[in-house]
Amino acid sequence: MRFVDRRSGLEVIERDECLRLLAAEAVGRVAVVHGGRPYLFPVNYALDGEAIVFRTAEGTKLDAAVRGAFAVFEIDGHDRELRSGWSVITTGTVEEVVDPNDLDRLGQLDLQPWAPGARAHWVRLRPASLSGRRIVTREEP
Amino acid sequence: MRFVDRRSGLEVIERDECLRLLAAEAVGRVAVVHGGRPYLFPVNYALDGEAIVFRTAEGTKLDAAVRGAFAVFEIDGHDRELRSGWSVITTGTVEEVVDPNDLDRLGQLDLQPWAPGARAHWVRLRPASLSGRRIVTREEP
Repeated sequence: MRFVDRRSGLEVIERDECLRLLAAEAVGRVAVVHGGRPYLFPVNYALDGEAIVFRTAEGTKLDAAVRGAFAVFEIDGHDRELRSGWSVITTGTVEEVVDPNDLDRLGQLDLQPWAPGARAHWVRLRPASLSGRRIVTREEP
Repeated sequence: MRFVDRRSGLEVIERDECLRLLAAEAVGRVAVVHGGRPYLFPVNYALDGEAIVFRTAEGTKLDAAVRGAFAVFEIDGHDRELRSGWSVITTGTVEEVVDPNDLDRLGQLDLQPWAPGARAHWVRLRPASLSGRRIVTREEP
């Protein structure tokens, strides 16, 4: 059964499918507020349970994590010919992972940063909300 | 000649190539701050000169535009097997397009919103900054 968001007209992707998509993808984008301005970063990430984890060097992402800032994380996909697409958005606070047991477990994940340079810090976003939307292919008007 | 960002170790995508990538892609993400929190939306967009334009219904994106909010717009691509990727990020204020001449011109663009429902408003982001980064494929360590 398919549910449609009445406001947007988009099909709702249910929670289990959102998690499946998060587990299947490798690259997402995280947005945080810093000094009143939005910042947006692409990251390669992994799932640790239902939490988004990624590695980072010093900088705005880590600053946000240390502050326990509120963040948005997004993945999406689209088919240009079909003019269809989907996105999954999760929000929550970000934190630096410092617990040694957690770090041991994260070290087992297949997550090497793609970018060069030392990325010694792990950042975790624990989803407080998780939602997905899909544009289903329509007939041309 | 290739330039490398000394801080991140990433290859710098120069301005002309950023604009070429913006012209070639169809879907990006816009982040704005609303009530102190980050919001992130995937949008299908077009270029009008060097400005990013997209269509929207009422909501947070339009509210931000009407406020002249500062926004970040991002496009990216990646190759999972090669562990390589690129992104182009542009920042600037967003505004609703209301000038009839502008609206006439935008109406000529090949930009139909993919999502269902009325998206009567045009939003424009005039880039104040434009930058791109590329992760070049490396040999496995």
